[in-house]
Amino acid sequence: MNYSNQHTDMSVFENLESSVRSYSRSFPTIFERAKGHELWDVNGNSYIDFFAGAGALNYGHNHSDMQERLIEYIQSDGLLHSLDMATGPRAEFLQTFHDVILEPRGMDYKVMFPGPTGTNTVESALKIARKVTGREKVVTFTNAFHGMTIGALSVTGNAFKRHGAGIPLTYSMAMPYDDYMDGFDSLNYLEKMIEDDGSGIDLPAAVILETVQGEGGINAASFEWLKKVEELCQRHGIFLIIDDVQAGCGRTGTFFSFEKAGISPDVICLSKSISGSGLPMAITLIKPDYDQWGPGEHNGTFRGNNLAFVTASEALKYWKSEEFSTSIQKKSEIFQKRLHEFVESYPELEGEVRGRGLMLGIASEKPGLSGQIAERAFAGGLIVETSGPDDEVLKFLPPLIIDEEAITKGLDIIEDSIKAVLGKEEAKV
Amino acid sequence: MNYSNQHTDMSVFENLESSVRSYSRSFPTIFERAKGHELWDVNGNSYIDFFAGAGALNYGHNHSDMQERLIEYIQSDGLLHSLDMATGPRAEFLQTFHDVILEPRGMDYKVMFPGPTGTNTVESALKIARKVTGREKVVTFTNAFHGMTIGALSVTGNAFKRHGAGIPLTYSMAMPYDDYMDGFDSLNYLEKMIEDDGSGIDLPAAVILETVQGEGGINAASFEWLKKVEELCQRHGIFLIIDDVQAGCGRTGTFFSFEKAGISPDVICLSKSISGSGLPMAITLIKPDYDQWGPGEHNGTFRGNNLAFVTASEALKYWKSEEFSTSIQKKSEIFQKRLHEFVESYPELEGEVRGRGLMLGIASEKPGLSGQIAERAFAGGLIVETSGPDDEVLKFLPPLIIDEEAITKGLDIIEDSIKAVLGKEEAKV
Amino acid sequence: MNYSNQHTDMSVFENLESSVRSYSRSFPTIFERAKGHELWDVNGNSYIDFFAGAGALNYGHNHSDMQERLIEYIQSDGLLHSLDMATGPRAEFLQTFHDVILEPRGMDYKVMFPGPTGTNTVESALKIARKVTGREKVVTFTNAFHGMTIGALSVTGNAFKRHGAGIPLTYSMAMPYDDYMDGFDSLNYLEKMIEDDGSGIDLPAAVILETVQGEGGINAASFEWLKKVEELCQRHGIFLIIDDVQAGCGRTGTFFSFEKAGISPDVICLSKSISGSGLPMAITLIKPDYDQWGPGEHNGTFRGNNLAFVTASEALKYWKSEEFSTSIQKKSEIFQKRLHEFVESYPELEGEVRGRGLMLGIASEKPGLSGQIAERAFAGGLIVETSGPDDEVLKFLPPLIIDEEAITKGLDIIEDSIKAVLGKEEAKV
Amino acid sequence: MNYSNQHTDMSVFENLESSVRSYSRSFPTIFERAKGHELWDVNGNSYIDFFAGAGALNYGHNHSDMQERLIEYIQSDGLLHSLDMATGPRAEFLQTFHDVILEPRGMDYKVMFPGPTGTNTVESALKIARKVTGREKVVTFTNAFHGMTIGALSVTGNAFKRHGAGIPLTYSMAMPYDDYMDGFDSLNYLEKMIEDDGSGIDLPAAVILETVQGEGGINAASFEWLKKVEELCQRHGIFLIIDDVQAGCGRTGTFFSFEKAGISPDVICLSKSISGSGLPMAITLIKPDYDQWGPGEHNGTFRGNNLAFVTASEALKYWKSEEFSTSIQKKSEIFQKRLHEFVESYPELEGEVRGRGLMLGIASEKPGLSGQIAERAFAGGLIVETSGPDDEVLKFLPPLIIDEEAITKGLDIIEDSIKAVLGKEEAKV
Repeated sequence: MNYSNQHTDMSVFENLESSVRSYSRSFPTIFERAKGHELWDVNGNSYIDFFAGAGALNYGHNHSDMQERLIEYIQSDGLLHSLDMATGPRAEFLQTFHDVILEPRGMDYKVMFPGPTGTNTVESALKIARKVTGREKVVTFTNAFHGMTIGALSVTGNAFKRHGAGIPLTYSMAMPYDDYMDGFDSLNYLEKMIEDDGSGIDLPAAVILETVQGEGGINAASFEWLKKVEELCQRHGIFLIIDDVQAGCGRTGTFFSFEKAGISPDVICLSKSISGSGLPMAITLIKPDYDQWGPGEHNGTFRGNNLAFVTASEALKYWKSEEFSTSIQKKSEIFQKRLHEFVESYPELEGEVRGRGLMLGIASEKPGLSGQIAERAFAGGLIVETSGPDDEVLKFLPPLIIDEEAITKGLDIIEDSIKAVLGKEEAKV
Repeated sequence: MNYSNQHTDMSVFENLESSVRSYSRSFPTIFERAKGHELWDVNGNSYIDFFAGAGALNYGHNHSDMQERLIEYIQSDGLLHSLDMATGPRAEFLQTFHDVILEPRGMDYKVMFPGPTGTNTVESALKIARKVTGREKVVTFTNAFHGMTIGALSVTGNAFKRHGAGIPLTYSMAMPYDDYMDGFDSLNYLEKMIEDDGSGIDLPAAVILETVQGEGGINAASFEWLKKVEELCQRHGIFLIIDDVQAGCGRTGTFFSFEKAGISPDVICLSKSISGSGLPMAITLIKPDYDQWGPGEHNGTFRGNNLAFVTASEALKYWKSEEFSTSIQKKSEIFQKRLHEFVESYPELEGEVRGRGLMLGIASEKPGLSGQIAERAFAGGLIVETSGPDDEVLKFLPPLIIDEEAITKGLDIIEDSIKAVLGKEEAKV
Repeated sequence: MNYSNQHTDMSVFENLESSVRSYSRSFPTIFERAKGHELWDVNGNSYIDFFAGAGALNYGHNHSDMQERLIEYIQSDGLLHSLDMATGPRAEFLQTFHDVILEPRGMDYKVMFPGPTGTNTVESALKIARKVTGREKVVTFTNAFHGMTIGALSVTGNAFKRHGAGIPLTYSMAMPYDDYMDGFDSLNYLEKMIEDDGSGIDLPAAVILETVQGEGGINAASFEWLKKVEELCQRHGIFLIIDDVQAGCGRTGTFFSFEKAGISPDVICLSKSISGSGLPMAITLIKPDYDQWGPGEHNGTFRGNNLAFVTASEALKYWKSEEFSTSIQKKSEIFQKRLHEFVESYPELEGEVRGRGLMLGIASEKPGLSGQIAERAFAGGLIVETSGPDDEVLKFLPPLIIDEEAITKGLDIIEDSIKAVLGKEEAKV
Repeated sequence: MNYSNQHTDMSVFENLESSVRSYSRSFPTIFERAKGHELWDVNGNSYIDFFAGAGALNYGHNHSDMQERLIEYIQSDGLLHSLDMATGPRAEFLQTFHDVILEPRGMDYKVMFPGPTGTNTVESALKIARKVTGREKVVTFTNAFHGMTIGALSVTGNAFKRHGAGIPLTYSMAMPYDDYMDGFDSLNYLEKMIEDDGSGIDLPAAVILETVQGEGGINAASFEWLKKVEELCQRHGIFLIIDDVQAGCGRTGTFFSFEKAGISPDVICLSKSISGSGLPMAITLIKPDYDQWGPGEHNGTFRGNNLAFVTASEALKYWKSEEFSTSIQKKSEIFQKRLHEFVESYPELEGEVRGRGLMLGIASEKPGLSGQIAERAFAGGLIVETSGPDDEVLKFLPPLIIDEEAITKGLDIIEDSIKAVLGKEEAKV
């Protein structure tokens, strides 16, 4: 059917959908199609994508090979929905993930399908850490974002989202992330709080963290800090859970975001881009010794989203060589160079460049400024969002497959938007 | 690709997947394709489906119209993943759901997309009830099942699944479901506990319930009981949340399971078959006055699974007339008649027929018996599972589009399995 | 000093004390002295005591022997405050309690001094039950009252008092007390909820109960029910905690309230009348196997109130023979006979006689009536209070040493008050 | 009676009392009498008191005037136990406390009697803060000690004591106390965590703190830090609760420990020495605007310990002039001078002098050393205990009425004990 003829304005959303809707407010148009790093709306406008489905579209929109695989599979009457029964695509994914990702990295993990979303994998990770250790509390960090169900929300920092719980969120202990305050060694502090028997901080079941915090404002922990966190966890029998939902799947330049830190998390959470195509999927990786689940002790209806498995295996082809990883690094450099130029050229931004790989941002100390730039950029044909507790960070998450030309074009729109918002004459948007 | 050539035994699951896997243990074969009410495995065996993806496949597998819509949409480069941005399929679903489901029933609700799974919609329902009432506790019922994330698990009854939380589950107060004990008016009891200022039961934010409990053992509440629960809730300003994830979408004979009870829940949870195709999707219906969310106060990466929206709108065509509903009722009668015959013919079962519509079961007081019948039935070419706290209920959830011939064939397999398990000579399976 | 000259009206309380004060509102006079079952205020009015310090003065006010012991001890420069250091009075109490109470009853318990109040002993009981079982939840009963600190308040039923916590009270599961609803076997229900793996009721660490609920409305559990609760607890490894703070120390006719039920609780809480004189004191009795505390794992500044120990040992002399117990039973019969006459003679009361021993009450279904009778009785020279969730029970807790003449005189005042409140002409008060 | 004849060894405690007993292990003798700063055991040994009932005996043992008042009151048949009914001693205390303590300091507070122990006043403080603010979480500090009931224990730091709860302790957020880590501005950190909407630290109902932490290791917060905490609280509508149970009643040199900090707490907790005599008593001071209790919303059997009121009023006489305060300061200087000499003379102690007023300590980095000194000192005739998470602090809490000669004598015993433990030849003990 031709949806575009049916719906050409936003009224249906305004009238029928809950007030909780958010992105359709920031980007108030109906999107019709998308390919690679580009989207088109029903009015024929095109947009460069610096958003990538909040990190769920690392391989871009509608990759042709994936489309082909999907259509083949549908035409073969393959099972779309299979709970956690055995199907070809599930087997293929397990094998490919093992062969392409785990084995070459010397990683030994069991793969759990916890339900198809990021919050599902986080909940499963917290559950297994608590079950195995017999402890309840979890150390989380300032500006962490782990999900919206009660277990995951409890370890999330954002006050507005926490407030939505309607109940006190407990069992978590918020600690300062790397570089949280100038001149303050947050790791020393965490160590002392955990080791001091008088601190009031109970020995935790787990430490959960993102190596680069996305929603929290593009804060990248140093590899050294990560390594020290791991050592602290090991010393005390605390699970180290890496939530790689947004930073994983190549976003920071390597498949897992923590590879260069040389750490070996006890549990790893993956979702967003793991399906390759933006279809709902999540996995939880658990060290074999800790895979102490009883059959069905955690379950869920949509653990068997076979279309997602089909594209997930296809996406893993990108990781058969070093090439993809290298290309991300190269694009990151180009991107970062330009961002630094912005910060220097426009001191009114009071800006700071943040991030790693293609998970980048400019934090501005001027209240509201980043939001204005994003709004202006959208008008100019670029999709970009803000993050951070006060939406103070302009956040760049382009598809990893974006080409340099599009990066440049997108950043030109950003520069024009900066100029426009700062009131510089030469703004073109 | 041809998955069947790649994976022909269960070893990949045994070696690489977490021990939490469950259905691949009950049904230890690799499924290759499926259509309507039938599945085929890689060894060429066919199976009648009395399971329907635990209720996620009410319209059967791979409905041809839905397949066509999916392929068209993929080929048009339509957005697969869109968070909660505006797209044609999202608009189309909102409009169709309004026109076909809500308006004809005189129902006024805002539609929230809480993330694509049952536990997401339950978590969102609990959150909004708590936020609006300013209270924390929720009344839940014996043998309730609402999901596996901490918020939903707190209101779930099953001890094994609760244990998996690794933390004490609080904020819920378990009350006896309709007919929980012989000669005990559970509603009177609930009423007294809520109204008695000395009971120790705090005034709850909400009562959450399934009108027919699926995982809990196919317990159907009477419409009279449901009506009384609603009255109690209204009298005290308590939210009535109907979790129609499994019982909704026609499973009990009407689109919503509570239509014949004449009640008007404050919040309704739908998932499983709402997408029509088994693709992950969920919605939360909230009375407009209670839709007090701030933008983004609850969010999630996979709120915009457009393939699911495409098939969801297609599936709603079934509800444009009364015909589908009538057919379910008719099949239910056929089905129930035969189940009653089983119970009478095989008193060794110590069986009891339960359920409503095509959500049926035989509870057996003989420990382990239902599981043995299900296992035998699988060997005979039928997929059927058990439920209840002790897996004592043989649970029948055929696709609603199943034909009478298949029902009969499936029930023949059941009867043979019963005979075999009971040691009757004439068993053929 | 002569306090009576200094303070002759209530203004100092009205001006300087918190609004939380309560009994000085019900009994708005300044009490000057008291002896046995009688009190006098600064205006020279005398009052018969049917209240006994809410059960803390079972042996009456200012027992002459106890006064003598106190003065001797003070004059000897004995330690008043000793934490849990060793002192003569502490040793003497331990030995006497063992010799007079525990040994003759064949009871083997360790004595813990948990701090000098009822809520302290309850908190210590809950802690040891949870520590030893490794479980968290506790079954409590409708209309239970166990104290006002968060642990004890969590297992208390009263909504007004629970509300004062300011936080959701969790870890408790409220169950119906014996005879909670007509024709409802509350024990069967409890048993089913605990044994049903789908009930949503987690296996508890403990069941805590009062054998006669004081604050909850003078509800006396049958000995048969108590015995069955004990059996249920033993079958499942659940701690049985008897909170004998109000019903113990002879209040119901035997030293422990549960003696005639033939049960052997795992933990017993005593306070109120344990010091004999109304001085703050509490003990927790723990079966030796469960006395798994580390030194100082629970502590408190006022565990060594030696004046209380001095009178506590003195009070235990009452229990050296059966005489005291017999006298309580006899007075109870006299008391109950008259209460039944009231209920019959004044049907307008819609009254019901409740209780056991000298822990008695008349529950009236007429809202506010019991409070009016108590108020009138105070004007007539009798101190009596109400209890129950709606203050619907006129509660009689005379000192156990009261004589028959005073009982009669007090009950005459009650009868006059009933008449006055019901508008009968012959009322004299 | 003569207790000393009855009990001359520790066997009764070893056989009959719970394993939780602690001080009777550190000080294994039976104490017979005490006067001022001195105690005598049943074997005729005398001890100087540097412990003062853990701060409950600031005015020393058995003050003659207090003894006289107690005996007079007992002989007058005054009510010993009165719940919260009006009595002369209660009125007298309220008036005297107002006239001598509150009014001269320009302080306007309502007085609540929350039950007679420190943990009762802390629980009542937390309750009113939560009730008035409608928030649940409370900021507490490293090494805080507030009590052993669940509410108070939740805001206590000590891991061993927290473990005794048997449930996860929640609703509290532990923050670093003043000077917790070298070169770390703990107040800046607290401020940032509270003001940062992404920190994961929910806006608290209250901050609770001791100005000098007793059990936590004699850590004295600077007045500047206290003032800044107050400012932070006021800026955000957070209750400031000062737990002055141990540091109050003159212990640090002024009646309230915070007077010199110039702060005005919203709620103040007093217990321990408030009765003057070591008899159980506690009060909670609440700013009139926040005194939003309903009558009886918090209650307790032993809120009317009249013997304690009698001596409490007597004790307040010390505060009618500046003299007492001045004398404490002077003794503190003498005491501190000598402690500094110890640290300098015995570098093997690796000692640090801590504290304020007569709440002093020497922290030693040598594991176990402080405990050995205390043990040796007891053998030498001095009662002194250790505190801190690892019992690393030798804690000095002499009665405030101690004379200089006794201070010197006590410190001589300490010095001898240090020498003995360090293996110096000249040790005399």
